[in-house]
Amino acid sequence: MLEASRWEHDHIDLIDQTLLPQQVKVLHIYKLEELEEAIKTMRIRGAPAIGIVAGYGVVLGIQNLFISGRLNREAIDEVFRRLSDTRPTAVNLFWALNRMKKVIDTVGIQDGQRLVDALLQEAQSIHGEDKDLCERIGKLGAEILPEGGILTHCHSGALATGGIGTALGVIRTAHQTGKSLHVYVDETRPLLQGARLTAWELMQLGIPVTLICDNMAASLMTQGKINAVVVGADRIARNGDTANKIGTYSVAVLANHHHIPFFVAAPSSTIDQNISDGSHIPIEERNPSEVRGFKEITWAPNEVPVWNPAFDVTPASLISAIITESGVHRFPYNFQNLGV
Amino acid sequence: MLEASRWEHDHIDLIDQTLLPQQVKVLHIYKLEELEEAIKTMRIRGAPAIGIVAGYGVVLGIQNLFISGRLNREAIDEVFRRLSDTRPTAVNLFWALNRMKKVIDTVGIQDGQRLVDALLQEAQSIHGEDKDLCERIGKLGAEILPEGGILTHCHSGALATGGIGTALGVIRTAHQTGKSLHVYVDETRPLLQGARLTAWELMQLGIPVTLICDNMAASLMTQGKINAVVVGADRIARNGDTANKIGTYSVAVLANHHHIPFFVAAPSSTIDQNISDGSHIPIEERNPSEVRGFKEITWAPNEVPVWNPAFDVTPASLISAIITESGVHRFPYNFQNLGV
Repeated sequence: MLEASRWEHDHIDLIDQTLLPQQVKVLHIYKLEELEEAIKTMRIRGAPAIGIVAGYGVVLGIQNLFISGRLNREAIDEVFRRLSDTRPTAVNLFWALNRMKKVIDTVGIQDGQRLVDALLQEAQSIHGEDKDLCERIGKLGAEILPEGGILTHCHSGALATGGIGTALGVIRTAHQTGKSLHVYVDETRPLLQGARLTAWELMQLGIPVTLICDNMAASLMTQGKINAVVVGADRIARNGDTANKIGTYSVAVLANHHHIPFFVAAPSSTIDQNISDGSHIPIEERNPSEVRGFKEITWAPNEVPVWNPAFDVTPASLISAIITESGVHRFPYNFQNLGV
Repeated sequence: MLEASRWEHDHIDLIDQTLLPQQVKVLHIYKLEELEEAIKTMRIRGAPAIGIVAGYGVVLGIQNLFISGRLNREAIDEVFRRLSDTRPTAVNLFWALNRMKKVIDTVGIQDGQRLVDALLQEAQSIHGEDKDLCERIGKLGAEILPEGGILTHCHSGALATGGIGTALGVIRTAHQTGKSLHVYVDETRPLLQGARLTAWELMQLGIPVTLICDNMAASLMTQGKINAVVVGADRIARNGDTANKIGTYSVAVLANHHHIPFFVAAPSSTIDQNISDGSHIPIEERNPSEVRGFKEITWAPNEVPVWNPAFDVTPASLISAIITESGVHRFPYNFQNLGV
């Protein structure tokens, strides 16, 4: 199975997801600025995977400070600040950074090698735990997933997590337990993670798949071809409002109109206890060029104004269930005592 | 103003809309097979524009039969059959062909030159009438269009018609009469007519525009930024069910959920009196390669199965008003005595 990122002796290996599926290229990341660039440009993406690689990023940053004899509180804060600033919406990033910070608080900075070792151990724990969480989410979700047509949006599979994925983990586990599924995949403009990653991953797994443009989902629903929707999440408020890839809210409204269950699958580290509802979730806006074309080609007028939010917020009332490792939660959600 | 197509002495000139906005290239069409290819590959598209060019196509086909001494009933039928087979959904195509057929019935085929002249006159009438219809639709629609944010899907502007456009004609007329508008344009995957044609045409007209991906419209709506939706139509059933570019139904459901008026603007030639409701409208399915990428580039796995309907059907109950040249019609629609 492909792994999104991995610590290798003194650096991070990660698959450049912007090149998939045409090219499987592993990047060897030795410097913090290379990692910042990789997260910002979404060479690595997916909320859990961002959390995992942020953990490794702290190891990398502190290791380099230690080696160059610059290990001090100010420089350490700078490492955390730079990683925090890469992407604003996914809460797993901040959750992982907090776990890494606690290690520094506990171990201290006197013995640099000991600190680096402890940080690496914590980062690998975050990674390993996520793998287990995916398994548990997959199992719980597979039980409630109906047979038939399943719609998913964006990509929340193996490459977006440390394990089998969240939404795709549910689909994959249901398929393995013998449920008959046909997965319809929204291509997910502008960065086309559905077309590039989800469709590809499902084909690798031998699960029947059909790729559609985002604007075709409603037609499938009205034709009775969708029995459930399942998606991942980038941040969940205490009341269950869920930020996920742009277009998720649109799918939730459509599912509601057609009386189709709409499921969110995510580890509880995605729940932000500090946020009462979705209106407080910051939504990243990305470069207009992503909407004017794709990669090197531009099809829209060069100067046309663009709105390009990376995420939207689906209100809890449109979500039939939120599947975390701790169970299948139903509306009204109260995540006061769960999560971080 | 750009014209989608025009008769030039002995051939058809048309703008290759697949190359817009990067390149404005005029094709000189001398042969019927060139025109068939141009319609099928959507070098010319938009229901009214297809009707207009089909009229000119009959002139071209009959003229070539006359010149080559092959003007007979069987060959004439073949001209009509080939034009009918280009695109199945837009009813304006069949409507225009029927008008041209009536000319042949009236004039007969004894005097070839006289027939060609009469056909050209009819084709130019269809073209000229469409121009007038657009003006009337624009005026009627502009009266009911609210100020503020207007969402449109696909392209129903000048290049899709013989005049100022249908949905864009409404927007343009409202803008000219001093209404303050900001137009949000769905890019309209897979062929991106919104990004390539609508955004470009609005910029030419100096109307404020913002381009979005199709999956972003719901977010704009929930933020209160959309005051009305206006789209064109490819075929309207007697009960008001409306086939239009894929994604239109999705927008209609979203508008309904957010209590936003949803308007259709189209000439009454778009109404198919033979069809009681939308379930009888044939929906063209196009090549999977359109969804796997765009033009020469492919981003999805080469072999991934695809569903690629060119249109969807919006039920009449989701349409706040249908604006034709004869008036602003409201649900429940009864187009028994209107149109063809």
